[in-house]
Amino acid sequence: MPVEAALARLLEVAEAAPIREREHLPLAEVEGRVLAKDLIATLDLPPWPNSAMDGYALNLADWSGEPMFVSQKIFAGQAPEPLQPGTCARIFTGAPVPAGADCVEMQENVQVLADERVVFTEPMIVGQNIRPQGQETTVGELVLPAGTRLGPIEQGLAASLGCAALDVVRKVRVAVLSTGDELVEPGTALGPGQIYNSNRVLLCSWLQRLGCEVIDAGILPDDLPTTRAKLGELQDVDLILSTGGVSVGEADFLGIALREEGELTLWKLAIKPGKPLTVGHFRGVPVIGLPGNPASTLVTFALLTRPYLLRRQGVQDVEPLKFEVPAGFAWPQAGNRREYLRGRLEQGKATIYRNQSSGVLRSAAWADGLVEVLEGRTLTAGDEVTFIPLTELLG
Amino acid sequence: MPVEAALARLLEVAEAAPIREREHLPLAEVEGRVLAKDLIATLDLPPWPNSAMDGYALNLADWSGEPMFVSQKIFAGQAPEPLQPGTCARIFTGAPVPAGADCVEMQENVQVLADERVVFTEPMIVGQNIRPQGQETTVGELVLPAGTRLGPIEQGLAASLGCAALDVVRKVRVAVLSTGDELVEPGTALGPGQIYNSNRVLLCSWLQRLGCEVIDAGILPDDLPTTRAKLGELQDVDLILSTGGVSVGEADFLGIALREEGELTLWKLAIKPGKPLTVGHFRGVPVIGLPGNPASTLVTFALLTRPYLLRRQGVQDVEPLKFEVPAGFAWPQAGNRREYLRGRLEQGKATIYRNQSSGVLRSAAWADGLVEVLEGRTLTAGDEVTFIPLTELLG
Repeated sequence: MPVEAALARLLEVAEAAPIREREHLPLAEVEGRVLAKDLIATLDLPPWPNSAMDGYALNLADWSGEPMFVSQKIFAGQAPEPLQPGTCARIFTGAPVPAGADCVEMQENVQVLADERVVFTEPMIVGQNIRPQGQETTVGELVLPAGTRLGPIEQGLAASLGCAALDVVRKVRVAVLSTGDELVEPGTALGPGQIYNSNRVLLCSWLQRLGCEVIDAGILPDDLPTTRAKLGELQDVDLILSTGGVSVGEADFLGIALREEGELTLWKLAIKPGKPLTVGHFRGVPVIGLPGNPASTLVTFALLTRPYLLRRQGVQDVEPLKFEVPAGFAWPQAGNRREYLRGRLEQGKATIYRNQSSGVLRSAAWADGLVEVLEGRTLTAGDEVTFIPLTELLG
Repeated sequence: MPVEAALARLLEVAEAAPIREREHLPLAEVEGRVLAKDLIATLDLPPWPNSAMDGYALNLADWSGEPMFVSQKIFAGQAPEPLQPGTCARIFTGAPVPAGADCVEMQENVQVLADERVVFTEPMIVGQNIRPQGQETTVGELVLPAGTRLGPIEQGLAASLGCAALDVVRKVRVAVLSTGDELVEPGTALGPGQIYNSNRVLLCSWLQRLGCEVIDAGILPDDLPTTRAKLGELQDVDLILSTGGVSVGEADFLGIALREEGELTLWKLAIKPGKPLTVGHFRGVPVIGLPGNPASTLVTFALLTRPYLLRRQGVQDVEPLKFEVPAGFAWPQAGNRREYLRGRLEQGKATIYRNQSSGVLRSAAWADGLVEVLEGRTLTAGDEVTFIPLTELLG
């Protein structure tokens, strides 16, 4: 199954099970959450015409070339008096332009006389250095649509409109389950044949960055009754996310449990690293099973599970930015799966880690992006290749 | 002052005041923090030769073309017996290769006879489908240098090496101070001449994403004794980060307080939006003052303050990834400051928001990147321009 087809299918699955519950949260707490309701401006921005400069406000029709008296001084935060005809007002950046003024001259272009009258020395035009009321936003405009992911910028924008709280989609509850008798948690000694579980912390940490509520369901041993019991305990989550287990052939107890009390389809993805992806449910609770090799877990989570989780919260724009950059390496052998190489941008060129084994995360820690090499493609150095920054995927 | 010169100066200032205190934290809690000590492998990865496939392990020298008996079955997590000469072992992905075997054949390439003996039908070579011990990491190797920012991938990598806790730099304590009598917090009604404070939530939220401890110091009114008193309360922070105040000319009480009891230099940056940046200290506590227009705050924080804060924690690699993309717009008028336009990548081209006013964050919320137009530069559509993804700056 090509990567696009798998993504399209997963997004459909996500849309069939949207998270509908909402929370009303103080603005300071919405970071990483998804807006549940269109944000409509209830305020013009700016709320009144204001000065873009430190300078002097005047009515251009009053100006004859003669020096003008300064009739008031307006700081930001002050409410000005209407401008006295024939005078100008000292005004500072962000301060409201007084009624009657239609022009602000910057202070660098005036001369202040000994008697404090002001001489304007440059030609001026109506409206200069004035930010008109509603220039950026007018009352009733859609400012942020429902489904927007909220970060510092959106929080700042909502604040500028006076919103102290927002309606957001409740967090997606994701249970993380590592399967495999070979897994041991860091901090204990390794027995023969055992390895440390790296996917648990990888996924728990990543899911938190994505604004999910994480239920750490630990390691699932290779045994059917325990698998059934553990899955049964996770009935109130929105997704059971497992790693490993699926490709271990005869020891696939997760697969057995899903077939017995739910559904399981195994997608053979044309992706490397990655390949087998399990999609199904256990007693109605959605299950996604990622391959257990850390680099495979990373790539399939980044490209498939992340968009799925965002779409469940109603986010439309779930795909990372991708850039075409020259390859700083050759790729002589075309593959029959789409490869996601762990790479770096070096002097504008994509370079790749020497060892692209899917076994550990060293290549990914070295990398600052994934380099996408399409199926059937060969590359010579200098050819354009697609680069996806890791920061686009990790948050 | 050109942007590079300002950044270089700020990084020097940061290096002169490194955060030296460390914390020893459980692995699950180090997300967003900076590694304080080189992480050296105390384990080979993989710890023993293991199978890259579900298949059969054999000693190639034993193979004569005749069917072979299966003498053991090795799942991941099991410790195998040495291979009985003349036999093969059933083996699953990730399981240790038994002593005596030097080759794994994938299950798709064998035929299993009725008596359960296995016929290998394809040519094989020594070492195939075996991941050798230490292929990715050997004991004593430097895996992550001190100064590395820790995210899900680094946490996963540390876990795979058995680390249950890491030494990290303590959080940078940053006090956020908004100056200006015109500012009101969202949730209260606007009086005449007032606007809502958007920089406070923008910066507090952003700093948290950067792993800082945030001290929300509120709004500073335009009055000298209050300014002095407030600054005096912030003696135990690593940075006082203020917005606004500096360009309001006669009402610059922050500037007065810094000159009285510390130091202040005003940098006229060749940057738009942005321009005035205050760098100094108050009784030895570093102060950075950003311009108060939200888009200016955003750009100067992203390009100057963020790298400063990372460098104080010992991070070397503080610059965002930048990409050269074709401009989807024309820029006929060369500026004398470097412009950071709020833009989007659309079909591979950089497009810009129609209104690039620095007054509000609407352009930034629309954007997914900053488009950098160098001083003195004009553009016609199709020219290459530099694009910085916002995700590179926001975390």
